[in-house]
Amino acid sequence: MTISIETARKIIAAALAKGRAAGMKPLSVVVVDAGGHTIAFEREDGASPGRYAIAHGKAHGCIMLGLPGSAIQARADSQAYFVQAMNGLFDGDFVPVKGGVLVRDGAGTVIGAVGITGDTSDNDALAASAGIEAAGLVAES
Amino acid sequence: MTISIETARKIIAAALAKGRAAGMKPLSVVVVDAGGHTIAFEREDGASPGRYAIAHGKAHGCIMLGLPGSAIQARADSQAYFVQAMNGLFDGDFVPVKGGVLVRDGAGTVIGAVGITGDTSDNDALAASAGIEAAGLVAES
Amino acid sequence: MTISIETARKIIAAALAKGRAAGMKPLSVVVVDAGGHTIAFEREDGASPGRYAIAHGKAHGCIMLGLPGSAIQARADSQAYFVQAMNGLFDGDFVPVKGGVLVRDGAGTVIGAVGITGDTSDNDALAASAGIEAAGLVAES
Amino acid sequence: MTISIETARKIIAAALAKGRAAGMKPLSVVVVDAGGHTIAFEREDGASPGRYAIAHGKAHGCIMLGLPGSAIQARADSQAYFVQAMNGLFDGDFVPVKGGVLVRDGAGTVIGAVGITGDTSDNDALAASAGIEAAGLVAES
Repeated sequence: MTISIETARKIIAAALAKGRAAGMKPLSVVVVDAGGHTIAFEREDGASPGRYAIAHGKAHGCIMLGLPGSAIQARADSQAYFVQAMNGLFDGDFVPVKGGVLVRDGAGTVIGAVGITGDTSDNDALAASAGIEAAGLVAES
Repeated sequence: MTISIETARKIIAAALAKGRAAGMKPLSVVVVDAGGHTIAFEREDGASPGRYAIAHGKAHGCIMLGLPGSAIQARADSQAYFVQAMNGLFDGDFVPVKGGVLVRDGAGTVIGAVGITGDTSDNDALAASAGIEAAGLVAES
Repeated sequence: MTISIETARKIIAAALAKGRAAGMKPLSVVVVDAGGHTIAFEREDGASPGRYAIAHGKAHGCIMLGLPGSAIQARADSQAYFVQAMNGLFDGDFVPVKGGVLVRDGAGTVIGAVGITGDTSDNDALAASAGIEAAGLVAES
Repeated sequence: MTISIETARKIIAAALAKGRAAGMKPLSVVVVDAGGHTIAFEREDGASPGRYAIAHGKAHGCIMLGLPGSAIQARADSQAYFVQAMNGLFDGDFVPVKGGVLVRDGAGTVIGAVGITGDTSDNDALAASAGIEAAGLVAES
């Protein structure tokens, strides 16, 4: 199972709707496939120019390690040099905070990830999970 | 004037509609702002994983030089080493073929660019121009 | 459908057997998944140290563009600057000659690629196709 | 003395067998030569896509410094900035935790290294040592 462009659009629309409903700052949302490659991305008006890279770095990090943003952030808190090494290893495309969320199908297989940036990392993750679940998929944040 | 996310969505939807109407291969479309930074991106089902990078490289090259893809491709045909130097200079994010199209407002100011990849470079550029014009903006391909 | 490690081992063993039977020079063989990420690799005794990078660059290029090595090599012959731009875009991990072979499942979906280096590019591709077909998959070289 | 492809296969098979017997998570194993260049690699089903890079970063770091992963990790604990500098120096291909294990011949000469990732760093190192010793070589973890 893979994430189609139609599903990716649903994820982004629902994530942005969650952000608007909760009064979050302008969000940027990326959906990547099981290899970490971008399927779709949107940056809301008012978000700063670097948001694609940050969103992608969150999602890409999740895919590369097979771990959600919360687990990567916890590892960063306990062993900073490991996480910094991952940043170097993946040529910077690795942002070790919440807001990167794994997307699993019903069988539990990782089929992609969502990365969101713009509000607090906790809120970024909430919006990502809302988007994934609205598309009928399982979020691991 | 800047390209809003709503306008970017219109550009992408119209570009993809053009591709479908013309029987093109699966397309990938990026819209970037006047600084070359991504506003929105979509990759159609069946497109290969590297398409974000290629689409962005086309749009980014246009913004960096202030030239449309056709002009950059012409320069590549006449002076390949210059264009190769640009590729190195911009850390690879520079793809010197058609399919990168400048977006101008009514006053002629460059407010962004569109990059499309997936079909022939000529068709990629046609789809990009169709998307830009459907959004009421001026395309320079 | 994905390529399991068991299937990857079969591909490599059969590709190397083809090379030995045909009297080819020492070969290096990589199998990557649909995102271009390495599943398995072997370098035969006597092969030079840079062979992992070359094999991976062939397979990775095929995945990124969704094209077999022969098509990429043809594009390099007709429009060298485009292919050189791809090398920059993918941070060097792009080797535009034969020996990169797409792996498709029965439905025609790209599920990975094989990259081989060591003998002539034509022979590299022959060995890769032999390996893929021995595993019951479809090779596009 | 060098590590032949046949020996590398033995190391990987025995390391993976150790992981299965101990109930470890899916492992990824690389064997590199005395120059840090990959001889063979396998990624077990279920391991995340970034595992080649991590495994290689562990083994490569060991070879570059002539130190086992435990010594590099200890240095990271005591002087994180030095280890971060090594990560930058070697272009990211340097992962400073256990699971990188030097391979020595009977005379004590470093002839390569093994890098494993997937379970805890301690378990990664155990599996690597098991693989090296099963091949009749000396492991320094």
